[in-house]
Amino acid sequence: MPKSNKIYLDYAASVSPNPSSIHEFGVEAKKKLEKARVETANILGARASEIIFTSGGTESNNLAIQGVVLSSKEKGLPHIITTNIEHASVIETFQMLEKRKLAQISIVEVEATGIVDPKKIKKAIKKNTVLISVMYANNEIGTIQPIKEIAKEIRHYKKQNKINNIFFHTDAVQAVNYLDLNVEKLGVDMLTISGSKILGAGRVGVLYKKKSVPLVSLFYGGDQEMGLRPGTENLEAIVKFSKALKLTQKIKDKEVLRLKKLRDYFFTKLSKIPFKIVRNGDLNHRLPNNINITIPNIPSDLLVIELSALGIMASAKSACKSGDGKASHVIKAINKDIKETDGSLRFSLGRDTTKADIDYTLKAFSQILFKLKKWYN
Amino acid sequence: MPKSNKIYLDYAASVSPNPSSIHEFGVEAKKKLEKARVETANILGARASEIIFTSGGTESNNLAIQGVVLSSKEKGLPHIITTNIEHASVIETFQMLEKRKLAQISIVEVEATGIVDPKKIKKAIKKNTVLISVMYANNEIGTIQPIKEIAKEIRHYKKQNKINNIFFHTDAVQAVNYLDLNVEKLGVDMLTISGSKILGAGRVGVLYKKKSVPLVSLFYGGDQEMGLRPGTENLEAIVKFSKALKLTQKIKDKEVLRLKKLRDYFFTKLSKIPFKIVRNGDLNHRLPNNINITIPNIPSDLLVIELSALGIMASAKSACKSGDGKASHVIKAINKDIKETDGSLRFSLGRDTTKADIDYTLKAFSQILFKLKKWYN
Repeated sequence: MPKSNKIYLDYAASVSPNPSSIHEFGVEAKKKLEKARVETANILGARASEIIFTSGGTESNNLAIQGVVLSSKEKGLPHIITTNIEHASVIETFQMLEKRKLAQISIVEVEATGIVDPKKIKKAIKKNTVLISVMYANNEIGTIQPIKEIAKEIRHYKKQNKINNIFFHTDAVQAVNYLDLNVEKLGVDMLTISGSKILGAGRVGVLYKKKSVPLVSLFYGGDQEMGLRPGTENLEAIVKFSKALKLTQKIKDKEVLRLKKLRDYFFTKLSKIPFKIVRNGDLNHRLPNNINITIPNIPSDLLVIELSALGIMASAKSACKSGDGKASHVIKAINKDIKETDGSLRFSLGRDTTKADIDYTLKAFSQILFKLKKWYN
Repeated sequence: MPKSNKIYLDYAASVSPNPSSIHEFGVEAKKKLEKARVETANILGARASEIIFTSGGTESNNLAIQGVVLSSKEKGLPHIITTNIEHASVIETFQMLEKRKLAQISIVEVEATGIVDPKKIKKAIKKNTVLISVMYANNEIGTIQPIKEIAKEIRHYKKQNKINNIFFHTDAVQAVNYLDLNVEKLGVDMLTISGSKILGAGRVGVLYKKKSVPLVSLFYGGDQEMGLRPGTENLEAIVKFSKALKLTQKIKDKEVLRLKKLRDYFFTKLSKIPFKIVRNGDLNHRLPNNINITIPNIPSDLLVIELSALGIMASAKSACKSGDGKASHVIKAINKDIKETDGSLRFSLGRDTTKADIDYTLKAFSQILFKLKKWYN
């Protein structure tokens, strides 16, 4: 017999405990899974039955958007609305649905600050609108969208027009460490978060889905996750996720203050480097860990590589779309005059970032700019 | 500066190395990812560019089936073929495609042995057939399907009819530890495996997809995995997976011999218990780790619970579908006379299973049957 004094003869189900098994190991696994679900629900102010675990943020966003569109009972095409600075997993899903003639789409443009006007969202609503998806905080420039205000506009529209079936989704992947995640206060029907942005959480996605939202799943083949996400749950990662998420909430207020100071120090010091440096996105309605700038005429990929050579890991555009040689759709959205060759450089801070890191980075960055000046000016 | 002497300012991309980033950490992550891809490809006898990492077997099967159907250029409905003992992630995907009027489906019945006749697969092919999906080994009864022979029949049909666009997929999730996985020798165009059945592998799925197979992705939003599976890769799990998969290959021959002995010993001893015990599925063309039986009149869920109370973790039907109180579709497929209340009991052995485990299990099982006899006979 194995050490634990138990005999495991369920290898065909899974080599590690499977929450769907009815034996003791399965029941224990199920308890752990449901505990993680309750804890995650508590942080979002939701019910446990409204939490769907997925493989990541991309899957959660796809499930929310494709799920509502494919479940729509609209006679003609359902209409869906988003903004022009969303993550690729939202924008490209919208484009695919339009291309396959499964939905009619509207893309609302944000202001030059990188923030969308809630009134413009309301204006875009049509009789056949079924879904509005607006990100909570932008992944490139960190700008925070007025989710509560947009929710209010949508509620007004629904009340005025006596309709119910417009659902509001927000991609809160970038917001998870720093902003209020209470879905009631935000007024959203669906919300995406992901473990990939939380220290120690592992690769897990969550889609919060209010009970009343009809959804069609992307996969078929099992009853897991209320039938909306078949496939054995990644229990180990889910447990790590719920613990890490809890910790983010505990230290949030302190981290926000600490990082805001570092961020503002970073921007102030940048403004003193004798080069043209353009800040991208509103300074105040922005994540406390985000610095995003454009250095006109200097390719941002080159800056990332030069910084990397000095031991500093930063990013040009968003990582998912890096390396394709085109300017970011987010930067183009807030700066119509930008050249295709002008990139953007993002420094995103985290729990281990110190003031010494920032000082070293600023010094190194200044050296790089002086070095590159002769070729690019 | 952090201990590593490097400064990480890319938390918004991911808190752990992201293979899509172009800085040093990203390049290192990319190297690890591609190494795992090459190693996995080598084991399957495939090219690295033909390996798609997913979240699990359910997603891989859905991607293969939905992917081919949605990419089909057939004028009418594309036709797809499978058997009546597939895993839920295949059968339910077929049913969904039929229900949504996206495909016409044929379900070929297996013989009483639990094995499909390759000629019957060939017979089911129509002019509009685009995909045939037959599992390599069954998850409940462990029967091994004649994949090579089916591939041969399909090749004959294609040659006779001078067509190219019928693709052959196999769900090899249960075969991964014990059977030959070389896709060339098998003659398949797509093959699914999953880490959940490999000790130490973590939750990762793989879809092997021959270069020539056209596929539409399930998600949108990034260029990862050749654009077929957007979303940041679960690098840590993928690296663990490729290492664990390599190990299974190294010890395969020895494990197969060892487990076959244990399995045959198990069946022989069972036949000596003075109760009616029906073996489900062919004895020889069966996975070396699978024992599946029916005890007429005794509910199998009850047997699982009684066994669990004695420290033995076994399974009734497959775990994904356990607890719904209906007889297994696999058992019904091989035994038309089975009562809805008659279940099936599966013992699946693994790397840690010893002869002492089997002896203890047989003794406990015999006791349970004697105990339950008075109520159920």
